[in-house]
Amino acid sequence: MSYLRPVIDQLNAYEPGEQPPLSSDVIKLNTNENPYLPSNTAMKALKMVDPDRLRRYPQPLADEFRQSAARVLKVDPEWILVGNGSDDLLTMLFRSMADTERSVAYPVPTYVLYRTLAEIQGAPVVEVPFDDDYTLPVDTLARAGASLTLVANPNSPSGTRAPNTALAELAARVPGVLAIDEAYVAFAAETALALVQRFPNVIILRTLSKSHSLAGLRLGFAIAQPALLDGLAKVKDSYNVDVVAALVGAAAILDTEHTLATVERIRRSRARLSAALGALGFRVWPSEANFLLIRPADGNAKGLYGFLKTNGILVRYFQTPPLNDKLRITVGTDRQNDRLIAAISAHGLQ
Amino acid sequence: MSYLRPVIDQLNAYEPGEQPPLSSDVIKLNTNENPYLPSNTAMKALKMVDPDRLRRYPQPLADEFRQSAARVLKVDPEWILVGNGSDDLLTMLFRSMADTERSVAYPVPTYVLYRTLAEIQGAPVVEVPFDDDYTLPVDTLARAGASLTLVANPNSPSGTRAPNTALAELAARVPGVLAIDEAYVAFAAETALALVQRFPNVIILRTLSKSHSLAGLRLGFAIAQPALLDGLAKVKDSYNVDVVAALVGAAAILDTEHTLATVERIRRSRARLSAALGALGFRVWPSEANFLLIRPADGNAKGLYGFLKTNGILVRYFQTPPLNDKLRITVGTDRQNDRLIAAISAHGLQ
Repeated sequence: MSYLRPVIDQLNAYEPGEQPPLSSDVIKLNTNENPYLPSNTAMKALKMVDPDRLRRYPQPLADEFRQSAARVLKVDPEWILVGNGSDDLLTMLFRSMADTERSVAYPVPTYVLYRTLAEIQGAPVVEVPFDDDYTLPVDTLARAGASLTLVANPNSPSGTRAPNTALAELAARVPGVLAIDEAYVAFAAETALALVQRFPNVIILRTLSKSHSLAGLRLGFAIAQPALLDGLAKVKDSYNVDVVAALVGAAAILDTEHTLATVERIRRSRARLSAALGALGFRVWPSEANFLLIRPADGNAKGLYGFLKTNGILVRYFQTPPLNDKLRITVGTDRQNDRLIAAISAHGLQ
Repeated sequence: MSYLRPVIDQLNAYEPGEQPPLSSDVIKLNTNENPYLPSNTAMKALKMVDPDRLRRYPQPLADEFRQSAARVLKVDPEWILVGNGSDDLLTMLFRSMADTERSVAYPVPTYVLYRTLAEIQGAPVVEVPFDDDYTLPVDTLARAGASLTLVANPNSPSGTRAPNTALAELAARVPGVLAIDEAYVAFAAETALALVQRFPNVIILRTLSKSHSLAGLRLGFAIAQPALLDGLAKVKDSYNVDVVAALVGAAAILDTEHTLATVERIRRSRARLSAALGALGFRVWPSEANFLLIRPADGNAKGLYGFLKTNGILVRYFQTPPLNDKLRITVGTDRQNDRLIAAISAHGLQ
């Protein structure tokens, strides 16, 4: 017998990417982490955390981080809600907006957590397939009429980005909320941030995991009009963000110089890696994120994934069509990317 | 118009206790924080966090903390699930077990978050009143036949504790899961930990917020048989506990000498404060927690709360009967408690 709700019994829990032991020599290009260390001022903030702050409950809205993020984004702090990673904000979105009577829609393939969260809520799901170029299917998404529509932008695993004009059209046409998940936007040419001013139903999600090299800290935030955030906050854990994350995150987001320099290095490496893979005969989707979706000419992505793993390089392979002939590869340092290219070339010679 | 589920629109969000600015001179006896600083080894662990750990995603099950907690509790690590505070574990319990068809039961008054979480799930709630002595209403709770039954033990705001015999009887009789919330158990004479060996439906919740002076770090854990924890983990955020919390928490829980010394000081202060308040004519419920529930002889708890606040001492007042003639007072340092007693005496002389 089970003590669980039937939907939970049937649920396939989200499976995070493999994490080899820290001590290992594996080149990790599978979970879109930033290859560069976090900002020094953030590390200094970590060392200076007052023990008296740890003793006390944190501020429910992570004030220091919220104010710093507001300063950097040039928005009012009331327009920001902080989460224990952006996954926490996604959880708030689903818990406050989706249920058996209120549906969820998003284009696929995309971040698989959307589906898991919809299933936990027992919500009907409309998954709209992207075409081969990953053009945002605005019309089909709008006609789904969902209470919650999600667009990862840039999308994962494709790295592609929908333009703001398409997002604005979608925002105007959906009856519910449009969540634009900008986890990777730091690596892109444009943000949809301006849309929150125009649309009361648009919410933007951000994270410090990739752009700020702080995946281990768990810090994300949402930007939307205060009325929308007030609703989300009702299902928030009272103290969802710990005081260390609030203080370290504040220092990190204020260190824009470090972030921009790191992001610029990754963008340059992305262009270089993309060209090298193209020259080796791979199809490479145009990426505005810190990873590339690629298809080997023979379509044997699983074979290449296994070969690379044997050679100490982890990349991401998804077994479900239409992704099972492709790989998602995080952009590493140039040195890591060169080792990847060398391994792929060796594989081609087999 | 609202973008939210109707139950969320109607929801009264949980209100955390007041948090005055850190710089203020206020004596904070309102949120059951520990008046002593966290362990030095925990603070050392904080300063030594490797930036490369922050760059990477954390381990989904917070391995270092889980293993350390298992060692201290003398259980297998598989019997432990770590949460972003014990509130996170409560959220997992409700999301995996409660819905419109699956009810929740608990005695009241107790931790008000139980009700909020049930409402978010749209779950029917059976609230069974405690009697004036806070004896656990085992029979009524068992007959409620809930999918999820919760007992805070020691209970808040009463500080009283149900014996293991009563909990075992309840565990044997409920058709669903019995969650025993031991947030305050470090200050009590007995834990119900042994019950998880006997009952596959019992889960114990713990937190480092009070006993380990780490409310700001957000770290809790559940102990239960692995099959039950596997179900809970399905609704867990993939990376719910950040790497700093895992490492600092591991150091803190292993420093049992520090914890025992701190807890013993608080217990002694509790006895002293309890006697002083009794001598001043208050009814004081027998507490096994780090706080006292007290009733002034005239029943004017609200007046006393306001007087104390004006005099720089924050205690907890709940406006809802049967609590509105009582106060919950966190046990502070002896010096803080003496100032409280002095203020109360001054109030009596008005």
